[in-house]
Amino acid sequence: MKVVTCIAPVNIAVIKYWGKRNEELILPINDSISTTLDTEQMCAKTTIMANPNFKENKFWLNGKEENCDNIRMQSCLKEIRKKANKNLKWFDWKIHICSENNFPTAAGLASSAAGYACLVFTLAKLYEIDGEISDVARRGSGSACRSIYGGWVRWHMGENEFGFDSIAKEIVPKSHWPEIRVIILVVNDSRKKYSSTSGMKTSVKTSSLLQYRAESIVPKRINEMIDAIKSKNFEKFAEITMKDSNQFHATCLDTYPPCVYMNDVSHSICSLVHSYNEIKKSIEVGYTFDAGPNACLYTLEKNVSEVISLINYVYPSSTPKEEYFRGIPFEDLSQNISEDLQGKVMNQRMEMDQLKYIIQTKVGSGPKMLEDESEHLLNEMGNPKVLIKTII
Amino acid sequence: MKVVTCIAPVNIAVIKYWGKRNEELILPINDSISTTLDTEQMCAKTTIMANPNFKENKFWLNGKEENCDNIRMQSCLKEIRKKANKNLKWFDWKIHICSENNFPTAAGLASSAAGYACLVFTLAKLYEIDGEISDVARRGSGSACRSIYGGWVRWHMGENEFGFDSIAKEIVPKSHWPEIRVIILVVNDSRKKYSSTSGMKTSVKTSSLLQYRAESIVPKRINEMIDAIKSKNFEKFAEITMKDSNQFHATCLDTYPPCVYMNDVSHSICSLVHSYNEIKKSIEVGYTFDAGPNACLYTLEKNVSEVISLINYVYPSSTPKEEYFRGIPFEDLSQNISEDLQGKVMNQRMEMDQLKYIIQTKVGSGPKMLEDESEHLLNEMGNPKVLIKTII
Repeated sequence: MKVVTCIAPVNIAVIKYWGKRNEELILPINDSISTTLDTEQMCAKTTIMANPNFKENKFWLNGKEENCDNIRMQSCLKEIRKKANKNLKWFDWKIHICSENNFPTAAGLASSAAGYACLVFTLAKLYEIDGEISDVARRGSGSACRSIYGGWVRWHMGENEFGFDSIAKEIVPKSHWPEIRVIILVVNDSRKKYSSTSGMKTSVKTSSLLQYRAESIVPKRINEMIDAIKSKNFEKFAEITMKDSNQFHATCLDTYPPCVYMNDVSHSICSLVHSYNEIKKSIEVGYTFDAGPNACLYTLEKNVSEVISLINYVYPSSTPKEEYFRGIPFEDLSQNISEDLQGKVMNQRMEMDQLKYIIQTKVGSGPKMLEDESEHLLNEMGNPKVLIKTII
Repeated sequence: MKVVTCIAPVNIAVIKYWGKRNEELILPINDSISTTLDTEQMCAKTTIMANPNFKENKFWLNGKEENCDNIRMQSCLKEIRKKANKNLKWFDWKIHICSENNFPTAAGLASSAAGYACLVFTLAKLYEIDGEISDVARRGSGSACRSIYGGWVRWHMGENEFGFDSIAKEIVPKSHWPEIRVIILVVNDSRKKYSSTSGMKTSVKTSSLLQYRAESIVPKRINEMIDAIKSKNFEKFAEITMKDSNQFHATCLDTYPPCVYMNDVSHSICSLVHSYNEIKKSIEVGYTFDAGPNACLYTLEKNVSEVISLINYVYPSSTPKEEYFRGIPFEDLSQNISEDLQGKVMNQRMEMDQLKYIIQTKVGSGPKMLEDESEHLLNEMGNPKVLIKTII
């Protein structure tokens, strides 16, 4: 028997990936850039056990047994085994895989990215692979390749028709810019969700703005973003992040029929961020939105306290504090924003409970293996220790 | 004393105008196409009186005296006088202008387009001008040039640096396609309004998608739209209309900071239209949105009854019927949609009172002069008959 447990991070794109040039190989139509978030606050966790007595491969996700046959999972397994050391005693043993996310799926954060990165990283540890594995993670979920690295990460679209060069690379590690903080505002939303896989497929087929963006705008923006990150120019970083988020959602709207991921509350958050930056006469906060209504704000540590107080003022909540504020503890929760600032944003105040909760996190490292046996999600028999986790 | 009273129509763009290449002359960055709406349901009305005893030019808008000095009004007056017969007895007399819209400004319909078209048309009648005047209306408000004609109208962006060829022309008259019906859904919305003048200025400055749209997408779309109109191909007409509305709002979102005109209710209307067309297996309804949250739906007369019943089912209203249903009377208001259709759109049903009211109208003619003296908005003394009209 051989067992390995690893965790992998969530990543948030600041230059967005939207659209594939090859559906099967998951090759994107443009490069993208993301920040990897600290696994302390959010992560996927996977245990894989190989056992000569196992009759078949099995897979549990968040405590529920799932079919192993899904095509993306299969292609990850196949690709990782190509890179594996075939002489390993357990190379041909069947495996049990148990995965979970420690963050609520309601957060609308790309759980599949962290999940597939974790699966592939854990498989790589099991099969003792040392080389590149982001191309394999990509086969699970495109953006999963970015969760293979920490800090700021670039996914190169590549040119090779088989996708050999469509891999992620670290731009700078988290230690390069430790002052960055990430605040995730989870929006109360009951609309039905569009899948991003089918959304981007329709966008590629119908939006001519998307094609133009991928070919003519993103390449230049990628370079500007890398400059901003390397030179720690927060204003530039936040500005490009906001522009790219807006442009991504613009191409979704240009899709036919349109894909609308942001809602009125999302747009009110953008509007508040622009007002705040205008009041501060400097870009102190940037926003970005993935294929959902939740906002991800970037700011510097020194601003966190005021920004959170501002959000509390504009989005009052009746949720108990211990449930509402998650991740890195917020200091000075009782602090009020200045009367001056209150006056300036008063007309943007919303009704109660537009936000579900708020998570504070920061930039983090890539996946890692957990040595402590108590961390395994599978018991000695190869069954999940916990079945059907309640996911909020 | 000389007095003239005219009315002019509202127009709704199906290929959108957004962005000027010359702010002063109001020259657009692309051609646009609109339908002129019937003045029976909505119009602007203007009375102009010239009198040798008037001491100064005066202007009342919706019963309230306004300053004549505004630059757009001045440029209309100046340009129209260039075209006028200088030998007219009243050419040098001062004038009193009284204008009103017979539709609520809350409808968010381009009242300035109808208003300036009416002003310029009335001035042209006063000064006995017979030639082109859409270039003059354009100086008041860009899209006003399209309200100078009836039926389907194209505003040619032109090439001349002084804008001589930036004029509107009729594509086909209303009689070409009398089956078309227009249903305007006025959405309840309390957000602050962005001005479209400053919005488009920011878009031109910051959105690279807008520039690409104007140069590379609109020219082709204009030709496709003209084909659809000339061949009375409703499906094509509605499809291009929807795509162009979405793309216009996409470029607004790509603007920095973004201009967001549609809200959650607007998007739910789009979604309902797409569902309905899918159920019908044919495009029976098209939507378009201007710089505001209200939907303008195009459909054929034969569908009006079912479409309205559908809207009543999905957007229930507590407003009294006589106030809620405006314009051309709706028949069969008591009719319910089929149980089959109900079942298919049930999950899209909204809370009460998301819509303020609904106007049914059709395609109409251009401006016209009213011969009946009782129509004048000014009394013998040159003062408004009604001051401070209550506008809902």
